[in-house]
Amino acid sequence: MRLSRYFLPILREVPKEADIVSHRLMLRAGMIRQESAGIYAWLPLGLRVLNKICNIIREEQNRTGAVELLMPTIQSADLWRESGRYDDYGKEMLRIKDRHERDMLFGPTNEEMITEIVRGSIKSYKSLPLNLYHIQWKFRDEVRPRFGVYRSREFLMKDAYSFDLDAEGAKHSYNKMFVAYLRTFARMGLKAIPMVADTGPIGGNLSHEFIILASTGESEVFCHGDYLEMAPPPADVNFDDAAAIQQVVNDWTTLYAATEEKHDAATFAAIPAERQMAARGIEVGHIFYFGTKYSAPFNAKVLGPDGAEHLIHMGSYGIGPSRLVAAMIEASHDDAGIIWPDAVAPFQVGILNLKVGDSAVDAACADLYAKLTAAGVDVLYDDTDERAGSKFATADLIGLPWQILVGPKSLADGKVELKRRVDGSRELVTPAEAFERLKG
Amino acid sequence: MRLSRYFLPILREVPKEADIVSHRLMLRAGMIRQESAGIYAWLPLGLRVLNKICNIIREEQNRTGAVELLMPTIQSADLWRESGRYDDYGKEMLRIKDRHERDMLFGPTNEEMITEIVRGSIKSYKSLPLNLYHIQWKFRDEVRPRFGVYRSREFLMKDAYSFDLDAEGAKHSYNKMFVAYLRTFARMGLKAIPMVADTGPIGGNLSHEFIILASTGESEVFCHGDYLEMAPPPADVNFDDAAAIQQVVNDWTTLYAATEEKHDAATFAAIPAERQMAARGIEVGHIFYFGTKYSAPFNAKVLGPDGAEHLIHMGSYGIGPSRLVAAMIEASHDDAGIIWPDAVAPFQVGILNLKVGDSAVDAACADLYAKLTAAGVDVLYDDTDERAGSKFATADLIGLPWQILVGPKSLADGKVELKRRVDGSRELVTPAEAFERLKG
Repeated sequence: MRLSRYFLPILREVPKEADIVSHRLMLRAGMIRQESAGIYAWLPLGLRVLNKICNIIREEQNRTGAVELLMPTIQSADLWRESGRYDDYGKEMLRIKDRHERDMLFGPTNEEMITEIVRGSIKSYKSLPLNLYHIQWKFRDEVRPRFGVYRSREFLMKDAYSFDLDAEGAKHSYNKMFVAYLRTFARMGLKAIPMVADTGPIGGNLSHEFIILASTGESEVFCHGDYLEMAPPPADVNFDDAAAIQQVVNDWTTLYAATEEKHDAATFAAIPAERQMAARGIEVGHIFYFGTKYSAPFNAKVLGPDGAEHLIHMGSYGIGPSRLVAAMIEASHDDAGIIWPDAVAPFQVGILNLKVGDSAVDAACADLYAKLTAAGVDVLYDDTDERAGSKFATADLIGLPWQILVGPKSLADGKVELKRRVDGSRELVTPAEAFERLKG
Repeated sequence: MRLSRYFLPILREVPKEADIVSHRLMLRAGMIRQESAGIYAWLPLGLRVLNKICNIIREEQNRTGAVELLMPTIQSADLWRESGRYDDYGKEMLRIKDRHERDMLFGPTNEEMITEIVRGSIKSYKSLPLNLYHIQWKFRDEVRPRFGVYRSREFLMKDAYSFDLDAEGAKHSYNKMFVAYLRTFARMGLKAIPMVADTGPIGGNLSHEFIILASTGESEVFCHGDYLEMAPPPADVNFDDAAAIQQVVNDWTTLYAATEEKHDAATFAAIPAERQMAARGIEVGHIFYFGTKYSAPFNAKVLGPDGAEHLIHMGSYGIGPSRLVAAMIEASHDDAGIIWPDAVAPFQVGILNLKVGDSAVDAACADLYAKLTAAGVDVLYDDTDERAGSKFATADLIGLPWQILVGPKSLADGKVELKRRVDGSRELVTPAEAFERLKG
């Protein structure tokens, strides 16, 4: 993408309304724009990151055998009356009357709807196990929305729902999502630690939060330091092998890890002192097993191999991609701006033309841009007539992992500068070397 | 995808509530499920088609230089008061009060919001031309929703908005979208004919509808028969070349084509009789140039090269992907079910295992499935224990363009049957030949 043809409204001033660093940086980097309190438009740069996150989530969900569908945003209140949650949910539910005065709502989650869909579609245990997920916008009418997309009213959520004949099958389904989440966050460059969690309004028997560490995190967490060195499960893990999947879960739940609410000081104290880690954390995923909590009121049953009807055992599994964009910035930034992990960077490479109009520089930039783009690399080519200092600042602010600085002086020696955003290191290389390094 | 692990709730009965063939077939094929009046969940098969359509749209929008962003579904009423449309829009606008009693609405379109975004972000003509688009769910509270996703209340829309310094630039932007739409529909296997249209509630000076012919179409259209033989513009058309793009538009607007409202019987009669075509049509796209209709109330201006402020000239360009799924079925089906054009088929190939448990058949199917999948072909492998007749019916109902029938008898001769959905033709080939033909 040529920056001269892109829409990247950079703010040079620090926005006053933003209380946390991710919100400030997302506004400054032209990733989002507030349209109403707690409601944001995703500008092109922000949308690219959001889509990359969604695609990683999708690939890892699919790897487990989960199947994607898409439920609507607007739901009937009757559905929520069936589960009894219509009255339980307070003012955070955005309630709507349509033109016929029917009670509707903007879905904050989809346990009810997916249970209705499965109830109406599946009759036999032979159709199970089943895991259905969607990635859809949801609404939670926060009383005082703040912190940008970290806690917005309209937010994107990947929510998966598993359906099994019995508790044992449901445990396997739960474990599959547990393992998928480990892989998902690792692929995004995040160290996410699973911690036993309260089940809250979703309800249920078993729940884990996945927490990343960030000095600006919302809550205090306590864990064994070895978590930070554990390798995620490999891509070829066999999700059908219940014992193998259980083993991965065991490996990741044996060491101590707890949020503030679940913290047990005595157990923590038993960890060798140099391995005790107390830090701030951000929740980036939450998984639940809740048995028949929803299948019972919805009477969602299947015929079992015994010829009898069985209530379906369910779980749900959430990751909020829009919130995750902000969480990643909280965990990875410096004074100059965002530092994206490569896998979710809006563009992997920036080419900075430091003297637009200089024919050698223009030609070298155009050549690198064409070659890298043809190689499938996402490149942002800064071909604008801004001064060099402004181009450096923009590339760092928006967090491009690799930046190729092309100026007349180095180019006269046949070189360009290759800069790594994460540590600011620079290296003089030939354009051909730069291409070889970055072509992926 | 193995069908035994998929979620494809086929209905054997014709649903009573469905009045038109696309609605019946989408329900029967397990593509959608109604959640409320005019509100549908997209089941996995339907979502695959919807995503393929969106990706073609996206590629052709990007080819013109349009840039994707994503605006929220919920908008502030104040935005619509600025344009004066809040009161104009009747009961079809889904109006909402949030917990603070602020007037909000579920966006039916985004002229207001995008104008606000551009007004707040762009100061100079140097940032123009600009075309921003998004693909987002919208809501239109129809009084009596019917016809499934052909005319649903919650529907998906690609809406693009162009911004130019003056009318001449805006015409070029309009023409780019005109050409992109020709390519978009052609890639989907559709013959879409541009027809001069009324501008309706969007307003403006210039507008074209893109109409496909279908015997079940909603309105009568009249055009020169040569339209059906015209080739779409090539992929390497230079969108920056205003004259070349104008020429394509001229080529596609010289011959007579008109909807009922715009029909001129005398002009039509002047067409050679054997070239006169009167048929039923379905609108699949609509483009508008409306100058300063929105930039004026929003005071959206840029500094021109003359140093003076100029109101931005705008256009908007819509395609409804969810409606398009239904329109394509209206235009392409038979008694057995849907006939997908290859480019949007949920799976290109079905493998029908006609004797599950027969080790030779199982092995041949598994081998073809693995090879085609590895070659990047979307394959649905029917490995269920349904009887053969039911598998044939399902594959035809859901419209798989190519079907490989693998049974013990042919396989003993080293052959499988390759069936083409569009004409039902079958051919005995070796599995290796089938792979060569379908690997893409």
